[in-house]
Amino acid sequence: MKVAFLLLVLAFAFAPAHGAEGPRGTGDLGLVVERATGSVLIVETTGNTALKRVEGLGDLSHASAVFGRDGRFAYVFGRDGGLTKLDLLEGRIDRRVVQAGNSIGGAISADGSLVAVANYEPGGVRVFDADTLDPIADIPSTELGDGKRARVVGLEDTTGDRFTFSLYDTGEVWTLDLADPAKPVVRRFEGVGDQPYDALVTPDGRWYLAGLFGEDGAVLLDLWDPKAAPRRILDGYGRGEAPLPVYKMPHLEGWAVAGDLVVLPAIGRHEVLLVDRRTWQEVGRVRVHGQPVFAVARPDGRQVWVNFAHPDNDVVQVIDLPTRSIVRTLEPGKAVLHLEFTPRGEEVWVSARDSNRVTVYDTETFETVAEIPAEAPSGIFLTARANRIGF
Amino acid sequence: MKVAFLLLVLAFAFAPAHGAEGPRGTGDLGLVVERATGSVLIVETTGNTALKRVEGLGDLSHASAVFGRDGRFAYVFGRDGGLTKLDLLEGRIDRRVVQAGNSIGGAISADGSLVAVANYEPGGVRVFDADTLDPIADIPSTELGDGKRARVVGLEDTTGDRFTFSLYDTGEVWTLDLADPAKPVVRRFEGVGDQPYDALVTPDGRWYLAGLFGEDGAVLLDLWDPKAAPRRILDGYGRGEAPLPVYKMPHLEGWAVAGDLVVLPAIGRHEVLLVDRRTWQEVGRVRVHGQPVFAVARPDGRQVWVNFAHPDNDVVQVIDLPTRSIVRTLEPGKAVLHLEFTPRGEEVWVSARDSNRVTVYDTETFETVAEIPAEAPSGIFLTARANRIGF
Repeated sequence: MKVAFLLLVLAFAFAPAHGAEGPRGTGDLGLVVERATGSVLIVETTGNTALKRVEGLGDLSHASAVFGRDGRFAYVFGRDGGLTKLDLLEGRIDRRVVQAGNSIGGAISADGSLVAVANYEPGGVRVFDADTLDPIADIPSTELGDGKRARVVGLEDTTGDRFTFSLYDTGEVWTLDLADPAKPVVRRFEGVGDQPYDALVTPDGRWYLAGLFGEDGAVLLDLWDPKAAPRRILDGYGRGEAPLPVYKMPHLEGWAVAGDLVVLPAIGRHEVLLVDRRTWQEVGRVRVHGQPVFAVARPDGRQVWVNFAHPDNDVVQVIDLPTRSIVRTLEPGKAVLHLEFTPRGEEVWVSARDSNRVTVYDTETFETVAEIPAEAPSGIFLTARANRIGF
Repeated sequence: MKVAFLLLVLAFAFAPAHGAEGPRGTGDLGLVVERATGSVLIVETTGNTALKRVEGLGDLSHASAVFGRDGRFAYVFGRDGGLTKLDLLEGRIDRRVVQAGNSIGGAISADGSLVAVANYEPGGVRVFDADTLDPIADIPSTELGDGKRARVVGLEDTTGDRFTFSLYDTGEVWTLDLADPAKPVVRRFEGVGDQPYDALVTPDGRWYLAGLFGEDGAVLLDLWDPKAAPRRILDGYGRGEAPLPVYKMPHLEGWAVAGDLVVLPAIGRHEVLLVDRRTWQEVGRVRVHGQPVFAVARPDGRQVWVNFAHPDNDVVQVIDLPTRSIVRTLEPGKAVLHLEFTPRGEEVWVSARDSNRVTVYDTETFETVAEIPAEAPSGIFLTARANRIGF
């Protein structure tokens, strides 16, 4: 491991600067979050290599990223409220602001002009100009008393200049329309359910689904119908009548949609739920190795790859969706935290934090294509996300 | 018009070369085919401008393009058998081969390493190394006698190193697997129907649908099932029992899939057909302004934009899919040939050949966002296609 890491360092040392290297496309670029060191690796998925490490991004535990529409800039959301605009081509921080005390991800508008951040402290959503990171709008969440406000989770971009998010502490879903950024239009839906903890938007931008941690179900909002209100769905999705201990909260995201199915990690149980996208009824469950954290569909929707909470987090399982069966169990390393498919799904990148490496698999043969040393890697994000709704 | 064009020429003259301009991303790049002059305009969709004209691409009538996975290179398929690798960042032809006498489009493998071209003369598919354009495989089609072979149409990439195409003259569908490029594996399905003329692959890479010109229907192949054979569907899709004159063949492409619906331009009739993607049964028709040529779904599937054959080709209509109604009729110019949405669908580019311009519309307000002068523009292709299956 140390030898491999030394080789990586040497590779960086000898990597030519952009000018010498000449122009390159951005369609195959991405980044790997190195959570312990506040750094990211800029990577490329054609040769499957790390191009450069960039440091100084602050506290990157639970960090995520979105991309500008030209694929050159990433916006990295740190846990400490830091919002960092990263230049993937020049391999440096372009701009950085610390916009809150505690944050949990963000989103970018369809035209790439607005970046929104979900904040815990102070609770609310702040919106920034994607070019300059100048503040555009500030949407405080519901007051809780003592100067505190509800924590914002599940912030998703949908279509146009619209965002949707949930308030964990007060059980609300809000939509935000910034067609005129000077006059944000907010719609508030109260009493949608107890403790919405994360959300996804379907790839068509129509359905916003938030999981509930405090009760046994989820909440769904039709964003295409201006008269629609959130409705409760999926009784039995949540922790159940006799809640199990939950070692790590599962995540919801747009990659969960696979053809007619939405694939959701159960909360606490060793199961993945299959939900019909037309009726929003549960149509099946697949028994898996542990408590699922991410259940990510390959872009063609034929497979779903699942990782797990401690103590089962050294394993990834592959579900074949047509047969709803586990077709492979892989061991990419210790503490597998995230996985990301290449845009057309022929390969997948898997991070193993405690093994200090990212493993790239061929999704058809399940063979290891590459191993890339990284410092305690967590989230992996590729530029193709810029072209998708709700990521 | 002449003034506008002069301004464009001046803009090109003063555009700085790449070195001076510095690095730029490729996620918002694309090209507009200028069919009469054998040139293409390199364009960008953030500021909605033309960056550079590149000449010398041969006969570009009915030309199309695919993109390498890094977004830097386009592969332009000319009618004259020319295959041109275009460097979008440097604004020049990187490589060019004339690989046949008469061609009709092509495709690129999921990993971006193989470019395949559908040929009329000599009939068959030729496959090239995406880096070098060196020949990799040659798949001659069925012999017709007199040294002639069947014309290949509807060539689509699916997943992995696989392609599927149809033989117009002999009514066949073939699949081609190039996992080992030295040993192409071809599966031939004969007697699938009379005169397959174009095809689409659903965005999941599962279903290959070819329209039939010689009879009243279409043919469908399940690419996920190795035992499946093509089956006849959609009686009534084709020219009908009393065929109408057809002024321009409609096109099929992956953008036709919108949620649960596949949207197909009728042949000869002033209608667009709505087909349920689960059952492959027709579930409705929408009456439109003329003989439809392209029926293209906005990436979120909420709208379908339709252009038309002569003499109705100065009009574009917008179908709102939830209500299945025409919500707008636009007149972008004379001889509207093609349209392409930005990756997340907030804008659409429309080419009007005989008005020598491309118009960019906001798809929510239908307002004109930009007009870009171009010489007899036809096809418009954006780099985000690189990230999609079956384009």
